[in-house]
Amino acid sequence: MTKHEGFWTTDPADILKVGPGFRLTDVDPDAHPGYDGDKKSAVRALAEGADILAELQELLTANATLGDPRRVLLVLQAMDTAGKGGIVKHVVGSVDPQGVHLAAFKKPTPEELEHDFLWRIHRQVPGAGKIGVFDRSHYEDVLIGRVRSLAPADEIERRYGAIVDFERELVGSDTTIVKVMLHISPDEQRARLADRLDRPEKHWKFNPGDIDERVHWPAYMEAYQAAFERTSTPEAPWFVVPANHKWYARLAVQHLLIDALHAMKLEWPPADYDVEAEKRRLAAT
Amino acid sequence: MTKHEGFWTTDPADILKVGPGFRLTDVDPDAHPGYDGDKKSAVRALAEGADILAELQELLTANATLGDPRRVLLVLQAMDTAGKGGIVKHVVGSVDPQGVHLAAFKKPTPEELEHDFLWRIHRQVPGAGKIGVFDRSHYEDVLIGRVRSLAPADEIERRYGAIVDFERELVGSDTTIVKVMLHISPDEQRARLADRLDRPEKHWKFNPGDIDERVHWPAYMEAYQAAFERTSTPEAPWFVVPANHKWYARLAVQHLLIDALHAMKLEWPPADYDVEAEKRRLAAT
Repeated sequence: MTKHEGFWTTDPADILKVGPGFRLTDVDPDAHPGYDGDKKSAVRALAEGADILAELQELLTANATLGDPRRVLLVLQAMDTAGKGGIVKHVVGSVDPQGVHLAAFKKPTPEELEHDFLWRIHRQVPGAGKIGVFDRSHYEDVLIGRVRSLAPADEIERRYGAIVDFERELVGSDTTIVKVMLHISPDEQRARLADRLDRPEKHWKFNPGDIDERVHWPAYMEAYQAAFERTSTPEAPWFVVPANHKWYARLAVQHLLIDALHAMKLEWPPADYDVEAEKRRLAAT
Repeated sequence: MTKHEGFWTTDPADILKVGPGFRLTDVDPDAHPGYDGDKKSAVRALAEGADILAELQELLTANATLGDPRRVLLVLQAMDTAGKGGIVKHVVGSVDPQGVHLAAFKKPTPEELEHDFLWRIHRQVPGAGKIGVFDRSHYEDVLIGRVRSLAPADEIERRYGAIVDFERELVGSDTTIVKVMLHISPDEQRARLADRLDRPEKHWKFNPGDIDERVHWPAYMEAYQAAFERTSTPEAPWFVVPANHKWYARLAVQHLLIDALHAMKLEWPPADYDVEAEKRRLAAT
């Protein structure tokens, strides 16, 4: 059995989960629920968690090799600069790349727009034994889709139901879904954008359109609230992670992944061949 | 400008490159050309190189974001247990997963077999700014393809030329190709397979077929030699990396990637917007 992390005061999965009555406006993006340490200790904790996560991922791969169909899907949603990229680099990046299926969903292509919004999503569902990561996802179609009126209101309505059905089907086919919104404040975003403008080696990360989008902040928060109410189900709940502190957000998402894998009770699978006979065959070569 | 690694006595790229007159049988799989240290110092060196490689990879991504079409393709070939997986995990795994496109080529599917052998390969060519990694590749079709007579001799002949043309086209479209064969001895393979049989947590990695394949070792070496002679071109040379010491193989492949990226002379790209104007716009939000 693999180890569990010992540095949480309370299981963050319980605190961060979106349940009935959840209000996004009640979440403090500066908070670090369940963790009492500071940035420095969080860096050490992240390294400790990385080893645990890496072993769990290898167990997932090992079992898939022998026919276990299970997989994990991490869905990452957030406002720009909230740290999705950092999660991929520092949390997902600590496991074997061979066990990861990463899909970044950008502005849909003309071909993608010819299909239902879930078409391009289905194509990126992770295979058995993989940790899939969606950097943005089907939720864009009820977030920017709603804020910028990219689809009629009744189509947006339809999508909430389609998403719930889609995710139920995924869960039914042995997928553990971990849906995460990284939550920063508008002031924190301003500071992060300013940092990109101040440092020449960060200029490539800045997009003037990011500033234009800031005026829609309240509308985005409303769209997130609506998405949580319509799609945070018992089988595929949302987690809202305060993300003004990057060190906290990384630690929390790492924990959510560890938790998802722990719940599978993975063990090293037994050999499907005769070990002693193979030893003799090998010695004879 | 990024740093270069300081721990090599001689540039391993020069020593490991397959040039005219190369004989695979002359390569000692136990050697560690260009590196005088031991395993312990190699682990430290690998960590140092990891930072350099990660920065170079970010530079590649940054330039691609602003339109630079360049990309890297690492092709990994080896006998079973030689350490391809370890290279992916410990060398490729040290860069941001968002900058990597990994493709593992297994036994072709019925659909793949309906097409030319390069069909499935073309579909996995990395995009601009990416480090593509082929875990096995189009070379399987002139290696196992030749050893096991999976195609007629004249078809195998045709493939060498098709590969050279394909790779020339890739290089012509801004791809730096790094072709690596990890070279172990049959005794080392026996020891590694025995280790998998001895340790229950490694049983899933063992496949009885791996033992059956050992009898074909000399035929495989001949097929590699033929592939080197026909496809190690000035624009896409092969590198044969002694791999009985995993620490050496990892360090050497890391260096080949660093070398490929250094040769691109990547700098942080200038902003394609007015930085001062954007600072003022941001402050007003």
